[in-house]
Amino acid sequence: MPDSENILYRERLKYKPRLPDVLNKNILSVGFKTKPAVVGAGISPSLQKLFPNLIQFSTVEIAASNSNKGDSSSNSNFRIGVVLGGGQAPGGHNVIAGLYDAIKKFDDQNSLVGFLGGSEGLLKGQFIEITGEMVDSYRNTGGFDLIGSGRGRLDDSSQFAICGKMVEKLKLDGVVFVGGHDTNTNAAMLAEYFLSAGIGCKVIGVPKTIDGDLRSTAIEIPFGFDTATKVYTELVGNIMKDAISAKKYWHFIKLMGRTASHIALEVALRTKPNVVLISEEIQAKGMTLSQITNYIIKIILDRVEKGYSFGVVLIPEGLIGFVPEVKMLISEINNILDKRDKELQSRISLTDKTIFIQNILSTQSSMVFKSIPFEIQKQLIMERDPHGNVQVSLIDTERLLIYLLTMRMKELRMSGEFKEEFLTQRHFFGYEGRCGYPTNFDADYTYSLGMTAFLLIRFGLTGYMAHVSGLKGDVKDWRCGGVPFSYLLEITQRYNEEVPSLKKSFVSLESKSFKTLAKLRESWALENDYSYPGPIQYFGVSELVNQRPKTLELDDL
Amino acid sequence: MPDSENILYRERLKYKPRLPDVLNKNILSVGFKTKPAVVGAGISPSLQKLFPNLIQFSTVEIAASNSNKGDSSSNSNFRIGVVLGGGQAPGGHNVIAGLYDAIKKFDDQNSLVGFLGGSEGLLKGQFIEITGEMVDSYRNTGGFDLIGSGRGRLDDSSQFAICGKMVEKLKLDGVVFVGGHDTNTNAAMLAEYFLSAGIGCKVIGVPKTIDGDLRSTAIEIPFGFDTATKVYTELVGNIMKDAISAKKYWHFIKLMGRTASHIALEVALRTKPNVVLISEEIQAKGMTLSQITNYIIKIILDRVEKGYSFGVVLIPEGLIGFVPEVKMLISEINNILDKRDKELQSRISLTDKTIFIQNILSTQSSMVFKSIPFEIQKQLIMERDPHGNVQVSLIDTERLLIYLLTMRMKELRMSGEFKEEFLTQRHFFGYEGRCGYPTNFDADYTYSLGMTAFLLIRFGLTGYMAHVSGLKGDVKDWRCGGVPFSYLLEITQRYNEEVPSLKKSFVSLESKSFKTLAKLRESWALENDYSYPGPIQYFGVSELVNQRPKTLELDDL
Repeated sequence: MPDSENILYRERLKYKPRLPDVLNKNILSVGFKTKPAVVGAGISPSLQKLFPNLIQFSTVEIAASNSNKGDSSSNSNFRIGVVLGGGQAPGGHNVIAGLYDAIKKFDDQNSLVGFLGGSEGLLKGQFIEITGEMVDSYRNTGGFDLIGSGRGRLDDSSQFAICGKMVEKLKLDGVVFVGGHDTNTNAAMLAEYFLSAGIGCKVIGVPKTIDGDLRSTAIEIPFGFDTATKVYTELVGNIMKDAISAKKYWHFIKLMGRTASHIALEVALRTKPNVVLISEEIQAKGMTLSQITNYIIKIILDRVEKGYSFGVVLIPEGLIGFVPEVKMLISEINNILDKRDKELQSRISLTDKTIFIQNILSTQSSMVFKSIPFEIQKQLIMERDPHGNVQVSLIDTERLLIYLLTMRMKELRMSGEFKEEFLTQRHFFGYEGRCGYPTNFDADYTYSLGMTAFLLIRFGLTGYMAHVSGLKGDVKDWRCGGVPFSYLLEITQRYNEEVPSLKKSFVSLESKSFKTLAKLRESWALENDYSYPGPIQYFGVSELVNQRPKTLELDDL
Repeated sequence: MPDSENILYRERLKYKPRLPDVLNKNILSVGFKTKPAVVGAGISPSLQKLFPNLIQFSTVEIAASNSNKGDSSSNSNFRIGVVLGGGQAPGGHNVIAGLYDAIKKFDDQNSLVGFLGGSEGLLKGQFIEITGEMVDSYRNTGGFDLIGSGRGRLDDSSQFAICGKMVEKLKLDGVVFVGGHDTNTNAAMLAEYFLSAGIGCKVIGVPKTIDGDLRSTAIEIPFGFDTATKVYTELVGNIMKDAISAKKYWHFIKLMGRTASHIALEVALRTKPNVVLISEEIQAKGMTLSQITNYIIKIILDRVEKGYSFGVVLIPEGLIGFVPEVKMLISEINNILDKRDKELQSRISLTDKTIFIQNILSTQSSMVFKSIPFEIQKQLIMERDPHGNVQVSLIDTERLLIYLLTMRMKELRMSGEFKEEFLTQRHFFGYEGRCGYPTNFDADYTYSLGMTAFLLIRFGLTGYMAHVSGLKGDVKDWRCGGVPFSYLLEITQRYNEEVPSLKKSFVSLESKSFKTLAKLRESWALENDYSYPGPIQYFGVSELVNQRPKTLELDDL
């Protein structure tokens, strides 16, 4: 930036995010009211031990001027820091713009510093003073490039102490952490630390992740999900058009999202593919690789009967980790890597290594191992994470599925049950969607989140996740507030240690979104009901430019 | 279709393509004037022999009402057929809409039939009567799904005879072939056949290909190129935003286009990547794989010096076929596959096969062969086209490049010259762009092409490619007409036979487009000058929604 020849960029800079009435009408005089807990209750003893301060907080909602103004409202001078954490999501710059505009509305002397490269910037004191000029050249743009992001962890007390010194040195009244599970878990721990250490700096989180797995009653949808899924629906729709025009290929499209299948579900509801695999369902049903293969094969054959030798299959990136027999296989391999790595390493060739593994595996796992292609066997044995475990995320799920399908097709061709060619194309969409220009929805939503985050700090609150709710409805009716981090946390075991982390939300098989899919997918499988949503539009009729995510529209949270 | 919940679809149906004055003002009374040849001259004897009729034609331009009305203008009753051939390109449906609207303007009794699945539909008599309702539900949409496309060839006299019988049976006054090189070459041959066989049906071509390699003085740009490249620029721009935000990966993006590098050049001019390889330049300079690798390595290292451990590289899909040493290697392997296949096949394992090949190759080719990864060696030996030759198109160029770069990086790391991690991501964009909703430019252009194609038939002309020129300027000033196929054809040798084919256009190293790139790329390499064009916009300010391709704007044709 500046990218002055770029007309869309120039036009998007001019967009004024719509604001909920509560932030729009008289922001200088708003207060907040405490609300009964919207989530949580029954806080576990471990959580109580780790977050003795945070667990005492209640949900708050920003409200008209006659309500509580909190501790800090007498203070008119604010200096705030902001950190972007984790993978990019469209709207990050608007959180910064919302923060900046809000603090400047209160006092032109207020200031905002942006830490560079995620929490590492905070630890090392690498930051920039954010100016109006900067903000004005990043409004409504995608990416996190104004200050950059990072994946550095911030989770032990020595780091917290460094942060404490840093915020005191910089005289910060608050730090806003924009991020997903890791970033906000770290923010919660830091908030607790600051409280117990008597450091006055407030810590507020903002919920971001294109994966969508931060949904809860409090957080209807994390930001970025709308834009990212709309980029994917454009591409999936275009490929469907190609498939039905060329009548030649089965397209296998893997969609980003290693844990939950929210993205795959949203994209499916908007494009109507012939097949979409939902990891949560596969896990719940305990489906095997061979059952998944047979499910797809049946659809391929049924379509051939109708004269359709083409189709589109959506696959969530994390699928493989949800297939019980693969999970078991991976756990057994991890065990071998842990206990018998020396023996394994003494086998020089890859072939010998795979044979060695095959012979130790349980009968069932050995069969699964034999059924997968050599390339993926290799990935299972060779690619290790820092703890020496199998890197499930590196396994090419769509390649594995195509391989299994092709093998079955060969059998069917030999037995004469199938005569057509089975031609495939593979796609993976992920990085394409993380940095698009935010949709109007994401632009509005993140701008409000930024403003809300500042107001929470101004009220003297800490240890809260900013949230904006009522997102299905009119922007003017959106409600803004904060939910204590403690309501969003759970305790998990990691290498024999109890660690807190933000709850992940998975696709619920009881949700309206999933039930809608379940009701329609048989028809989608056989007919060509494809929908082609096209590229995100920023200008035009309101129903076009202000479409919400389908899963948000459908689900009651 | 109908996809009534889809708002963009509904909105695009309403778009009224803008028309050049000559088609807009009084289409019922236009005539044409003959123009001096804009291309060609010096027609080869082989071409004269194959196209004795077509070579006699001159370029024509549609003109005001006092000009020539041609033979058929007394006839008011027309029945026309249309064929879509080859890969999809955005705008195909608008060619049909333009054709349909034009013929109906002249007489409501006129009719249009669409042959299904390309030329095979014509050969087999598979077609539909195109109705107003059909056209109205496909206006300004992407894809070829209204009638489908096909890659079937139509190039021998027995096929022509069948077509002759078919058009007579269906009482067709003309057939419009919408397609790229193959389709239009076949159309030219069919036109010549009809003339020599005394069959009155006219044959007109319409220039389509997203690859852009049909450019000439007569055809400023084939349709579909604008939309497809704008889909790719969106994705490349988004990935650049991701790269500069995450500061972690080098993204290698392969772009569709197996012959020329027009797509890569266009996308580069609009997004400003750190590296773009132009096949034509690599061929002209006779660059080796190792020189290409060194060129990229230098940029990677120079960027590391500036603190940038990320970047974006654009690679044309057909690159590998333009590297002289690889061409030589492939030609030697083809020779071995041809002459010593039995010996090769007697080697059972792939390793033995590669050793066998390695030992027969010339010293230079053997070195090249050894330098490439096993996966690609395998592709070279195992994947054959129907003639038994190496399938160059299947070779994963971007994978090969990443491999070579990674090997060099390892050496540099061993020698201590490089300390950073070198993390890469691969992408291939092709199918995503072939079926997008056409841009306003493609929608306008194809609608005019459709109308023009009908007018040429109405004038009694055959053996012409419809063309619309002056495309850089205002739509109202566009000129419409036809250029004889014979001007666009050349004779090539294929397996000892002289065959005609439409000339392919390559990126000219003397063009303003290429020179602009050559001037700017050093700065793009080191700075982060990325541009993020965003998704195609159909609504909004004119300069946003009516952007022409950059290469069209820059080049004088």
